[in-house]
Amino acid sequence: MSMMTAAQYEESLRKLDLVVYMFGERIDNVVDNPIIRPSMNAVAMTYELAHKPEYRDLMTATSHLTGERINRFTHIHQCREDLVKKSKMGRLLGRKTGCCFQRCVGMDALNALSIVTYDMDQALGTEYNPRFLAYLEMVQRGDLVCDGAMTDPKGDRSLPPHKQPDPDMFLRVVEKTAEGIVVRGAKAHQTGAVNSHEIIVMPTLTMREADGDYAVSFALPADAKGITYIMGRQSCDTRKMENGKLDQGNIRFGGHEALVVFDDVFVPWDRVFMCGETEFSGILVEKFASYHRQSYACKVGVGDVLIGAAQTAAEFNGAERASHIRDKIIEMNQLNETLYCGCIACAAEGAVEPSGTYCVQTLLANVHKQNVTRFPYEISRLAQDIAGGLMVTLPSEADYRSETVGPLIEKYFRTREGVSTEARMRILRLIENLTLGTAAVGYLTESMHGAGSPQAQRIMIARQVNMNEKKRAARNLCGIEETDGKNQD
Amino acid sequence: MSMMTAAQYEESLRKLDLVVYMFGERIDNVVDNPIIRPSMNAVAMTYELAHKPEYRDLMTATSHLTGERINRFTHIHQCREDLVKKSKMGRLLGRKTGCCFQRCVGMDALNALSIVTYDMDQALGTEYNPRFLAYLEMVQRGDLVCDGAMTDPKGDRSLPPHKQPDPDMFLRVVEKTAEGIVVRGAKAHQTGAVNSHEIIVMPTLTMREADGDYAVSFALPADAKGITYIMGRQSCDTRKMENGKLDQGNIRFGGHEALVVFDDVFVPWDRVFMCGETEFSGILVEKFASYHRQSYACKVGVGDVLIGAAQTAAEFNGAERASHIRDKIIEMNQLNETLYCGCIACAAEGAVEPSGTYCVQTLLANVHKQNVTRFPYEISRLAQDIAGGLMVTLPSEADYRSETVGPLIEKYFRTREGVSTEARMRILRLIENLTLGTAAVGYLTESMHGAGSPQAQRIMIARQVNMNEKKRAARNLCGIEETDGKNQD
Amino acid sequence: MSMMTAAQYEESLRKLDLVVYMFGERIDNVVDNPIIRPSMNAVAMTYELAHKPEYRDLMTATSHLTGERINRFTHIHQCREDLVKKSKMGRLLGRKTGCCFQRCVGMDALNALSIVTYDMDQALGTEYNPRFLAYLEMVQRGDLVCDGAMTDPKGDRSLPPHKQPDPDMFLRVVEKTAEGIVVRGAKAHQTGAVNSHEIIVMPTLTMREADGDYAVSFALPADAKGITYIMGRQSCDTRKMENGKLDQGNIRFGGHEALVVFDDVFVPWDRVFMCGETEFSGILVEKFASYHRQSYACKVGVGDVLIGAAQTAAEFNGAERASHIRDKIIEMNQLNETLYCGCIACAAEGAVEPSGTYCVQTLLANVHKQNVTRFPYEISRLAQDIAGGLMVTLPSEADYRSETVGPLIEKYFRTREGVSTEARMRILRLIENLTLGTAAVGYLTESMHGAGSPQAQRIMIARQVNMNEKKRAARNLCGIEETDGKNQD
Amino acid sequence: MSMMTAAQYEESLRKLDLVVYMFGERIDNVVDNPIIRPSMNAVAMTYELAHKPEYRDLMTATSHLTGERINRFTHIHQCREDLVKKSKMGRLLGRKTGCCFQRCVGMDALNALSIVTYDMDQALGTEYNPRFLAYLEMVQRGDLVCDGAMTDPKGDRSLPPHKQPDPDMFLRVVEKTAEGIVVRGAKAHQTGAVNSHEIIVMPTLTMREADGDYAVSFALPADAKGITYIMGRQSCDTRKMENGKLDQGNIRFGGHEALVVFDDVFVPWDRVFMCGETEFSGILVEKFASYHRQSYACKVGVGDVLIGAAQTAAEFNGAERASHIRDKIIEMNQLNETLYCGCIACAAEGAVEPSGTYCVQTLLANVHKQNVTRFPYEISRLAQDIAGGLMVTLPSEADYRSETVGPLIEKYFRTREGVSTEARMRILRLIENLTLGTAAVGYLTESMHGAGSPQAQRIMIARQVNMNEKKRAARNLCGIEETDGKNQD
Repeated sequence: MSMMTAAQYEESLRKLDLVVYMFGERIDNVVDNPIIRPSMNAVAMTYELAHKPEYRDLMTATSHLTGERINRFTHIHQCREDLVKKSKMGRLLGRKTGCCFQRCVGMDALNALSIVTYDMDQALGTEYNPRFLAYLEMVQRGDLVCDGAMTDPKGDRSLPPHKQPDPDMFLRVVEKTAEGIVVRGAKAHQTGAVNSHEIIVMPTLTMREADGDYAVSFALPADAKGITYIMGRQSCDTRKMENGKLDQGNIRFGGHEALVVFDDVFVPWDRVFMCGETEFSGILVEKFASYHRQSYACKVGVGDVLIGAAQTAAEFNGAERASHIRDKIIEMNQLNETLYCGCIACAAEGAVEPSGTYCVQTLLANVHKQNVTRFPYEISRLAQDIAGGLMVTLPSEADYRSETVGPLIEKYFRTREGVSTEARMRILRLIENLTLGTAAVGYLTESMHGAGSPQAQRIMIARQVNMNEKKRAARNLCGIEETDGKNQD
Repeated sequence: MSMMTAAQYEESLRKLDLVVYMFGERIDNVVDNPIIRPSMNAVAMTYELAHKPEYRDLMTATSHLTGERINRFTHIHQCREDLVKKSKMGRLLGRKTGCCFQRCVGMDALNALSIVTYDMDQALGTEYNPRFLAYLEMVQRGDLVCDGAMTDPKGDRSLPPHKQPDPDMFLRVVEKTAEGIVVRGAKAHQTGAVNSHEIIVMPTLTMREADGDYAVSFALPADAKGITYIMGRQSCDTRKMENGKLDQGNIRFGGHEALVVFDDVFVPWDRVFMCGETEFSGILVEKFASYHRQSYACKVGVGDVLIGAAQTAAEFNGAERASHIRDKIIEMNQLNETLYCGCIACAAEGAVEPSGTYCVQTLLANVHKQNVTRFPYEISRLAQDIAGGLMVTLPSEADYRSETVGPLIEKYFRTREGVSTEARMRILRLIENLTLGTAAVGYLTESMHGAGSPQAQRIMIARQVNMNEKKRAARNLCGIEETDGKNQD
Repeated sequence: MSMMTAAQYEESLRKLDLVVYMFGERIDNVVDNPIIRPSMNAVAMTYELAHKPEYRDLMTATSHLTGERINRFTHIHQCREDLVKKSKMGRLLGRKTGCCFQRCVGMDALNALSIVTYDMDQALGTEYNPRFLAYLEMVQRGDLVCDGAMTDPKGDRSLPPHKQPDPDMFLRVVEKTAEGIVVRGAKAHQTGAVNSHEIIVMPTLTMREADGDYAVSFALPADAKGITYIMGRQSCDTRKMENGKLDQGNIRFGGHEALVVFDDVFVPWDRVFMCGETEFSGILVEKFASYHRQSYACKVGVGDVLIGAAQTAAEFNGAERASHIRDKIIEMNQLNETLYCGCIACAAEGAVEPSGTYCVQTLLANVHKQNVTRFPYEISRLAQDIAGGLMVTLPSEADYRSETVGPLIEKYFRTREGVSTEARMRILRLIENLTLGTAAVGYLTESMHGAGSPQAQRIMIARQVNMNEKKRAARNLCGIEETDGKNQD
Repeated sequence: MSMMTAAQYEESLRKLDLVVYMFGERIDNVVDNPIIRPSMNAVAMTYELAHKPEYRDLMTATSHLTGERINRFTHIHQCREDLVKKSKMGRLLGRKTGCCFQRCVGMDALNALSIVTYDMDQALGTEYNPRFLAYLEMVQRGDLVCDGAMTDPKGDRSLPPHKQPDPDMFLRVVEKTAEGIVVRGAKAHQTGAVNSHEIIVMPTLTMREADGDYAVSFALPADAKGITYIMGRQSCDTRKMENGKLDQGNIRFGGHEALVVFDDVFVPWDRVFMCGETEFSGILVEKFASYHRQSYACKVGVGDVLIGAAQTAAEFNGAERASHIRDKIIEMNQLNETLYCGCIACAAEGAVEPSGTYCVQTLLANVHKQNVTRFPYEISRLAQDIAGGLMVTLPSEADYRSETVGPLIEKYFRTREGVSTEARMRILRLIENLTLGTAAVGYLTESMHGAGSPQAQRIMIARQVNMNEKKRAARNLCGIEETDGKNQD
């Protein structure tokens, strides 16, 4: 089997024995839990579309290891066009699900490791790359979902890992044996964790020499002994447990994030991809971050949904021809397509690494992500402007279904002919979902902090820009002598 | 009794016999309903602070009718300083409650009617003003909460009231008798409706002659026969029904909005303040809108809370000295204080009306409100930036209290010494509440659409600005002849 | 004489014997120099309007020293209403001149000194205040223009005054005698310097004890021996020397700024207002800065001109009904009136100082000025949008007047009937003047850096905001214990 | 000869006999005129760099007609990579010249005609394409500069061409003969017109059937009989005539724009590329506009210069380590690189036309240009913030060179060690040049209006976006029935 169907994927999850907690209780049946299931549905879409001929080019690729057709989410980018297709796949899935579909983080981890394990082996004579490739082949053949786990809790942010009062605030190696290593710690904000077959752990920042135990990367089955998942809660999460789907807005899809705790978990050596090589921790973080900042291509697709919803709401209100409405829709598109330019440009300007993997252009990937921390908020504000206040004062579906007050709602919330009150309620609930509800978690706050908070991108931009070239250009044009000023290059 | 205590206010509500529906069920005990009660707490704060010496100057005034000390929310503004104090009272209460405290809409309705009933009587020889003043005195003596009800459902927005397929899409007089009138229709988005003693109805837009039945204004006891309230639901509303308060963010206060349906309700003549005078419908809307746009002073106070929360979160993370954090806090303050300037300036530039009532400067009130449709969104975005991603991935209070996973949360979400994990969770939940949860409904979407959507303000700005003065200034400075151009004044 | 006419003012300038340089040459006749004269015209407007009945209330006041009617520019603010009128006077003059009228800086210096000389005397037993009041009375009786000179060149910004390689980089006392002091140094960016009768010098920043010689404030006649003025050049300055006025845009008014050098200039003691009291240098800077940040009320008036010009250009093009043009005009007004709110609010919230002088609210004055560093740029961008590209590709007036190509210009740049080509050219040149030309210096760059650069305001905002009140409000609402966190107040 | 050197280019211009007017006088020697020469220098750079090995790949291409190496400015794009290189060439030249280098407009006209002449021939059986290709080969062999002339004066904008009171407000055919056509009219804002060998005329908007005489495209030698050029003047243009170069800011390069009048000019048939085919006028405008909106890649290069200048100014002031300065430099880069993403993305997403020419993606090219109407203004504002007020108060170079006041300037405008006062003056003059002076015309106002004003892009964005796809996505996610709403696709 090289590519699972959505149904096979769901089955495969049922076989896992995950330790998952939510609202203080352990969840027996993760797959059918009403709050988690929509997030599983979103991941399943990555399988479903891969089997549709019209999306085959974007959703699948040919493995450079096996030559077989594989899901692009398990692929190592072999050319610039692969990078461009990755951005387009992200937009497509964002539009199809209206939320985070969770699978890119694993793809980005695989690609980053394909580069850094190779570089380490070249520099240090280690044998991480062959190990990694064997692991990769297993992932490709099994068409697995991998969680890419990077963010540690970090504790007191003014202290390095080894100086923390509690040494576990960054995930670390607590023991090494002939068979493998034992790790302890936690990874926070793990998107799609309980929908994953595998967890790939990476360090969260550049480690100094004294933090050698923290420079560790490895992969584990999601249900390895000692791993506990604690679900994060989201705005409006419990609406998924209510009767009726209407108030959810997005009636089928959602995302989730979890705290993943590693309580002295054993990792065999053949799944260890970095162990103490602090000097390569920084580049692993940077490569993963660059790929993952590109991945925010998905928000363009979610933006498509929100723009479509706002346009629909305007049409339902009979306001779509008002010039200010048209202008706001244009502005939403302007912002959304500017984001699209970013994820296309950083891909089109990508380059090959020594390992043969293609990587996005780091500067532009950071510029793209920085815009993602801003524009969805403005798109969201404009959507709320167009939607009107009813979006937040609408009675519940239960009221609408009630025999007593349902008819009053039906009567008083009708607008133009041909539009049902229910359709109007549905589109407003979708906008609420995307701008305040569960999907706002992904479209807004995750756009802000996922793949690094805004300041992380600004630091990278400052590092990546060639300021000397710019200064030389300016000095040359105004005739400043070469010897003037001490900060010259 | 001229000023009730908070406890007396709560008692007075228990005596009302309101017909309220939520989640498809009639609510027997409105006051103690867990979803509604926080909004009652917020209104109660307007009573509580009026009895505190340090707030007496802002929270109370001397009635121009009775000479007695009254709650400022029932006062008719007698000077510019009254208008300025109204803005300051709004900010104070916003800061104290972190949400909408619902009582300004009635104050604004009373003040608008004090002007327009007088003007009608002067122009038409009617006797609305004495009637209104008698009603006002009753409100002042009883220290009542009034809902000011303006927004009709509007149906098909391209049609005037009398051309709607369903004539009830705007509230209207269906019968006139010697004793009074009978009205039918609905008012949407009624803030604080079920915490009110009285409902004051006004038309929602300028009525043309053919829409005479729709040019109607009156007051009713909130529990008048034939009135039904259907609660609107809010993002995260059901968290208020959960065990534990932590996940609510704001553990005590909230807002609410309701659809209020009038099913052939009788209004005696002494409570009717406009009935068919279409030519005065526009000015009533404009005066109410100007006052109510000023009232968005409250969002400055909510902004104070959000800025304080962001600063606290930064301190808890140990990040408050980072230059980018400091700069973002400054920016939040810059935006918030710019809003403050708006509500102060439109008050300080207010002027007296023929009735003796002072009214805010209309242009600046609209300019202020227009900024309110923008800046809270940016303040909110910056707060999410500072808060970090944990705000949307934090486990539930139930997990935190659980014996199994609680200790893991306690361990991994600790930051700097001296800060408890619980305190960190609380402040993040408050920011969630204000930017995605129930309070975001008030701080964001209501800031957008309350007191008129952004385009309504832009239309008023275009009307109120003296463009001829500006054009003359420009022409004069560049030496254009008086005869040039045909659009001169 | 208590108030000069514009003609008397011009005459009074002719009597001065200033040492002024421009383009490498000494200027014999400053008043009639074509580049300087428009700036004199702008100052003269402050005299002209004071004699017009319709502006008497704004332009004049009653001296608290003499009880006589004086020009408001020489007045010490005696109540909040004085502060509000100052803001309105600034807007009025900005609209009348379309540029910087230069006289507010002296008014602000006088008011700041009225406060700080009093405070010094109270604290230290000095006698600066009586001296200052005698000087003030002379200024009021003579209706003089004062330059308020604060900004030193500063040299290496990382070093304090006394550590500079060249000790003259900040103006300082080089000698003290029984008769007075001798000062050396320079003041940069001196607005309206060569149109002034007097120069009032103040320190540019808070001085430490070791910088005692730099904590000096005094007044001098503008033509005191040893003072040299070097005119700064402005974008498009030499257009004022061309034949024809059209290409100037603003055909009558302009601004100027100069470097003023003090080469061992003697100041008699009765004109010395601070000499070594380093502990009062900071408050003098802060008070002057607060007043002067309020003074950017004038940019609202310049904004009026630019909005009027843009509207006129749109009408001349026949584009004024296009919805996007209308919306841009509204946006320009929205931004301009938001600035107006700032200068009104900081005045309306002003308070009395121990000296009896009223001072603006410092926080809001800084918030206002911060907005001035932003909004005029956006207003200017929108004006260029509306004006169209012709604004920067228009042939010269000489071409238009030429017999050969003049008719071609006349033919091809006509638009709608009733609008002459010349009128169209004039309005476009005015917009060029305000957004790229001499007036852009005042409307844009001076809005950025005058009265302190943006970062100076941000630092003051951070200092002035009551963050503890905000933090307490947030903690209280989410239920954080008093003992949590170490940065509590 | 296939590629001229810069010197050969200059020589070739001397051979032209252009009729050029400026300041009311005919210019005999265009090439050496001090105001025009800097613009010639900028065009010459497109020749100079083509001979440098390090730029060969960007600056040259292989002609698909002759197989010879040609300057890319005369090339028809044969693949996506050609489009991407065009964007990179634009940035390179913008950085090298700090201004508009004028040659892209001809390249864009050639490429647009290569598509539309082919399409016309296919649809109508005309023979424009072979004619055009013969002309193109001549241009390539001669390495000529072509002016692409599109913008008509337009007269009363509410009327179509044939209804204008003066029928010449749009350029038109006044006579057709066996040998050719005679044309009359004018083209405004012609960038680089008097540095061109050829003028390629195109219609300015979609022509209706009644406007057949206006649907005309052709090429003429720049000195054809009957053509008159009237130079537009720019902010600070006459500084180029002053002694000394310092005050120019950019001491070598500039741009220019001219009104080009066609007074019954004869065009032989072999240079006519459209004559009456109104149905193809719209697509010619659209193709040219798309290419030319991409060409605003050059502003990224000018942005590089301004960022480099701001950084240099900060270093000269000793302020470059201040966190707010660093953050502003990052923001300038963020905006500039976002623009870069736009011009790369529209190229990387380009596609082949039936003629074999590659064309940029229209939607993204419009999105890119729309950002160009905004971001340079903000970059410019930030540069002025960093530069400080001295940029607009600096004395002239003549003052600096004067023996009297020069030493005072030298003394008082020194900053940190190792930086000469002259260097500081130079960099500030460059920033003045780019934000207020001659280069601001290109960097700001031309960014606004060149290649179509902002609203033109918004209209194209509205047309190009697939709204139905977005609406379907939204409806599907919230469960709206296919039959709901009447505006469905």
